[in-house]
Amino acid sequence: MKTATQQTHTVNGVNVTQLFETIDLIRETPEISRFRFRATNTWQGGTYNQATVKDFYGAMQEDDTRNPLVFDIDEPPILLGGNKGANPVEYLLVGLSGCLTTAMVAHAAAKGIELRSVESRLEGDLDVQGFLGLSDEIPVEYQQIRVSFKIDADISHQEKEELIMMAQKYSPVFNTVSKPVPVKVSLSD
Amino acid sequence: MKTATQQTHTVNGVNVTQLFETIDLIRETPEISRFRFRATNTWQGGTYNQATVKDFYGAMQEDDTRNPLVFDIDEPPILLGGNKGANPVEYLLVGLSGCLTTAMVAHAAAKGIELRSVESRLEGDLDVQGFLGLSDEIPVEYQQIRVSFKIDADISHQEKEELIMMAQKYSPVFNTVSKPVPVKVSLSD
Repeated sequence: MKTATQQTHTVNGVNVTQLFETIDLIRETPEISRFRFRATNTWQGGTYNQATVKDFYGAMQEDDTRNPLVFDIDEPPILLGGNKGANPVEYLLVGLSGCLTTAMVAHAAAKGIELRSVESRLEGDLDVQGFLGLSDEIPVEYQQIRVSFKIDADISHQEKEELIMMAQKYSPVFNTVSKPVPVKVSLSD
Repeated sequence: MKTATQQTHTVNGVNVTQLFETIDLIRETPEISRFRFRATNTWQGGTYNQATVKDFYGAMQEDDTRNPLVFDIDEPPILLGGNKGANPVEYLLVGLSGCLTTAMVAHAAAKGIELRSVESRLEGDLDVQGFLGLSDEIPVEYQQIRVSFKIDADISHQEKEELIMMAQKYSPVFNTVSKPVPVKVSLSD
């Protein structure tokens, strides 16, 4: 039975007590699990633009408490840019890397599996003939993305493979990339 | 006929001379259009991890000339994090915003359409019951992403709508999100 003096249980730096309390709350009131994440973008000239992340909606309320997080987006000179930031397809890999990692760490924590380190390398194949409109046969999108994980923990190879499966099953960015997701783009006046 | 003294033509800050020269080069040697973009990620504890973007392969060679770009990835407290950075699904929106913007600006430049400003707002719907494994019916991925563009230019509403269509047609991140892309995740020893 839970009491006010119950100690907080943390695994892999994840507050598992709060995690299970959150799960209980969502089972009672599923609406709190609906989030809306946001970004804004302002073109700065050429291939350089800036995105800002700040507010989001979740747990049935707006959250505007974070300081704005500003991201410079640009291309390297070979792609007509000025190297003022990572490029858009690299930001997608950044998000994918973080999402697979967090899904793995959180689900391992929920199962009581302690991890010492998790590292990953990502690489995606992109033919810019698609972007340039030079071929209808060559995909505009990443043709394939490869992710390689190195996990240090006192668990078997088989258990590490299971963590890799869990990461893919529960990662929102992995599933957004590997499945078709509707993106509605419109003009506002 | 091109000569060494030909002036560089720039539209929207995009070097259109270099753009068309690049297109000519790719038509001669399509291999130069094949890129491999990369990121690495190191887990820092809990929902906090760091991604680094640096080298890439493109134009038939490795490019290791950029300084490392390091990105903090974390969750807000309501999602068990410490707010040390934007979260993974927000990074995906950052990449999507930049990619649609660059695709629009570059293709407008190629057509000689001058733009004064381009701004966008993005919002994605995510139900964290998927991430938490609480429901097999609720998608783990973004259920829908909406992007709204504000374009300032001396062109008609119809021409702005055409820019929006071009952005979607030629944006690698838009097409990576809206189409299924294979992501191979493996364990390295």
